[in-house]
Amino acid sequence: MSAVVQNKGQENSTLHFSALEPPRRYLFGPGPSMVHPRVYEALSKPIVGHLDPYFIQVMADVQQLLKTAFGTDGGATLVISGTGSAGMEAAVANFIESGTKIAVFANGYFSDRLTEMAKRHGADIARLEKPWGETYTENEAREFIGREKPKVVAYVHAETSTGALQSGQAICAAAHAAGALVIADCVTSLGGVPVEFDQTGIDIAYSCTQKGLSCPPGLSPMAISQRAMEWLRARTSPVRSWYFDLKLIHDYSTVSHRYHHTAPISMFYALREALLVIAEEGIENRWARHRRCHKLFVDGIEAMGLRMHVPAEHRIATLNTVCVPKGVDEAKVRKRLLDEAGIEIAGGFGPLAGKVFRIGVMGPLATEDNVQFFLKEFQRTLSAEGYSI
Amino acid sequence: MSAVVQNKGQENSTLHFSALEPPRRYLFGPGPSMVHPRVYEALSKPIVGHLDPYFIQVMADVQQLLKTAFGTDGGATLVISGTGSAGMEAAVANFIESGTKIAVFANGYFSDRLTEMAKRHGADIARLEKPWGETYTENEAREFIGREKPKVVAYVHAETSTGALQSGQAICAAAHAAGALVIADCVTSLGGVPVEFDQTGIDIAYSCTQKGLSCPPGLSPMAISQRAMEWLRARTSPVRSWYFDLKLIHDYSTVSHRYHHTAPISMFYALREALLVIAEEGIENRWARHRRCHKLFVDGIEAMGLRMHVPAEHRIATLNTVCVPKGVDEAKVRKRLLDEAGIEIAGGFGPLAGKVFRIGVMGPLATEDNVQFFLKEFQRTLSAEGYSI
Repeated sequence: MSAVVQNKGQENSTLHFSALEPPRRYLFGPGPSMVHPRVYEALSKPIVGHLDPYFIQVMADVQQLLKTAFGTDGGATLVISGTGSAGMEAAVANFIESGTKIAVFANGYFSDRLTEMAKRHGADIARLEKPWGETYTENEAREFIGREKPKVVAYVHAETSTGALQSGQAICAAAHAAGALVIADCVTSLGGVPVEFDQTGIDIAYSCTQKGLSCPPGLSPMAISQRAMEWLRARTSPVRSWYFDLKLIHDYSTVSHRYHHTAPISMFYALREALLVIAEEGIENRWARHRRCHKLFVDGIEAMGLRMHVPAEHRIATLNTVCVPKGVDEAKVRKRLLDEAGIEIAGGFGPLAGKVFRIGVMGPLATEDNVQFFLKEFQRTLSAEGYSI
Repeated sequence: MSAVVQNKGQENSTLHFSALEPPRRYLFGPGPSMVHPRVYEALSKPIVGHLDPYFIQVMADVQQLLKTAFGTDGGATLVISGTGSAGMEAAVANFIESGTKIAVFANGYFSDRLTEMAKRHGADIARLEKPWGETYTENEAREFIGREKPKVVAYVHAETSTGALQSGQAICAAAHAAGALVIADCVTSLGGVPVEFDQTGIDIAYSCTQKGLSCPPGLSPMAISQRAMEWLRARTSPVRSWYFDLKLIHDYSTVSHRYHHTAPISMFYALREALLVIAEEGIENRWARHRRCHKLFVDGIEAMGLRMHVPAEHRIATLNTVCVPKGVDEAKVRKRLLDEAGIEIAGGFGPLAGKVFRIGVMGPLATEDNVQFFLKEFQRTLSAEGYSI
């Protein structure tokens, strides 16, 4: 099927749109990641209305399954009808009022984005700065929070721009000691590596669907602690964003089911299925599989004489940053990988532009065979671009 | 397939999630509407990355096809990664600064929602009020705008809560004479009835995917006039919402393709296909088909002795509000229709609670056979609930 369409305003010309036939890609980038066939099947199921009893049950199932993925019993889980950045904005819009002091652990692109959002919401911002790829120690966390005495603390659990995993234990403990709420960006961690929401002491976590959950992008799952819910109920100034007003969304999705917006039905079907696929594997088994494939990947990378950007103990198991070897043009490597092998990986940006490859090994691609396949193609491509071991 | 899942924190219990098998519904409500099989097929196509050349082309195709649907040559078209209400919030957040005077033509739920959003963004609000279901005359539009001298004017083109269609010609002319921009809520009109963006003189229009476009919910198409784009470029205060910042979204989707957020790839596939289905039918043919089915519907309703809530000349062709006859419990009618015939319709709310049925006849359901099917089931159900012609 293909269509010939009159172009409005250019009546003499016709536009040709070819049938939708996306190329087959191996998504070894930082996300979106590969999607399980069952999730595609769920996407194509007939929709029902957003207030239909069946859909209310789908939302309830998703919330229940998200509790396991986030690692929370007491926290509320819900889903924002937007992408991961929509979750970030919901976190900022609901917990930052004009003048609220926020302390940000900055070490990559997404802490900068969060800072920018907080600034737009009128926050009083304190930032602790480290180079992209580094993480914060317990002492640094305690000292910074103790000194700044913020009302809200934010950190990025798995920083997609750098490949570094930030432990949240000390940050949350220090924040709670100071009476602050903690926002954790779990966009790249949820479903891929443990989030442990309750155990860590996170108050507000947001994520996406297209990384560790192996679902197409379009929704942002969130977890909110009881303390944070109470804070929200006590807030007197209106949340600037109506669309991201968590009290209204929580009421629609969990409490009264009163209409707020028309939830993306098909995406909820997909997310439910993706979470079921994970639940059937077992989340701990999934994390272990990612760790095994990560080790295999790193061994292969180092066997090629390449270096990882982040020290071993702070790496995200599902997202690897590999240093670009001297003399190699990383953009050419990426283009050749895409053109010749259909493999997508990403480059670095900001201070890491041209310096790292960002390579995801998650979800359906986290198998021994797929890692070996990738390493072989990567080595071949690097060689073609002038790199020799 | 079905899963037995350990419930975190209740280790002794197991939760059973059944396979995703949504019931078959005939979506005769105000939306979501029925989805063409080709659109479901598009949803299940393998995703590519959000910066993949293939996806950039998909976005470009969608923008091009939206120009025909909106009826604009010079305006920019883009897509917000959220539902129709996200489009509303994008319109408000980008064109309202603290203290901006906005004049709202209020006559239903969505003008109230828009007012609420404008209030949260610190607007100076002037509202003209009419009962739900009524519309504004040219004189009223001129007089209100001439008196209030706002910077932004907002009206709802097709008011989903009432079934009334508001002509925009006089509103836009008066607004432009006063130097104001015009926001038109086209959530229920786009794809179903003519929007005629350029001809009407609209500056900012937002819509959804799940009504006139017959696609699942999840995206909000927008059209923005050149004047509005210039206004946006000249704006000096930052847009409070980073996620809905139209300059950044326009840059990602149309200009530089620099990363802003990870667009919902599968939903874009679906929207492209839905727009192609429309383009192949021809948008004028589609409008004419909706008008024919609307007439058939109204004739059938009146033949049952029922009354329409909105005068004939101001009805939305795709969304009918039918007065609930005396002595009939509308909630019981809706429940019986859903349970016995799998037909979803909606009730009224706000001042119209219990007083109207809201019945959509759009997209794949707008055929003579489907209208007859609906009317027969509706009559049977009303009879079962005690109504006799």
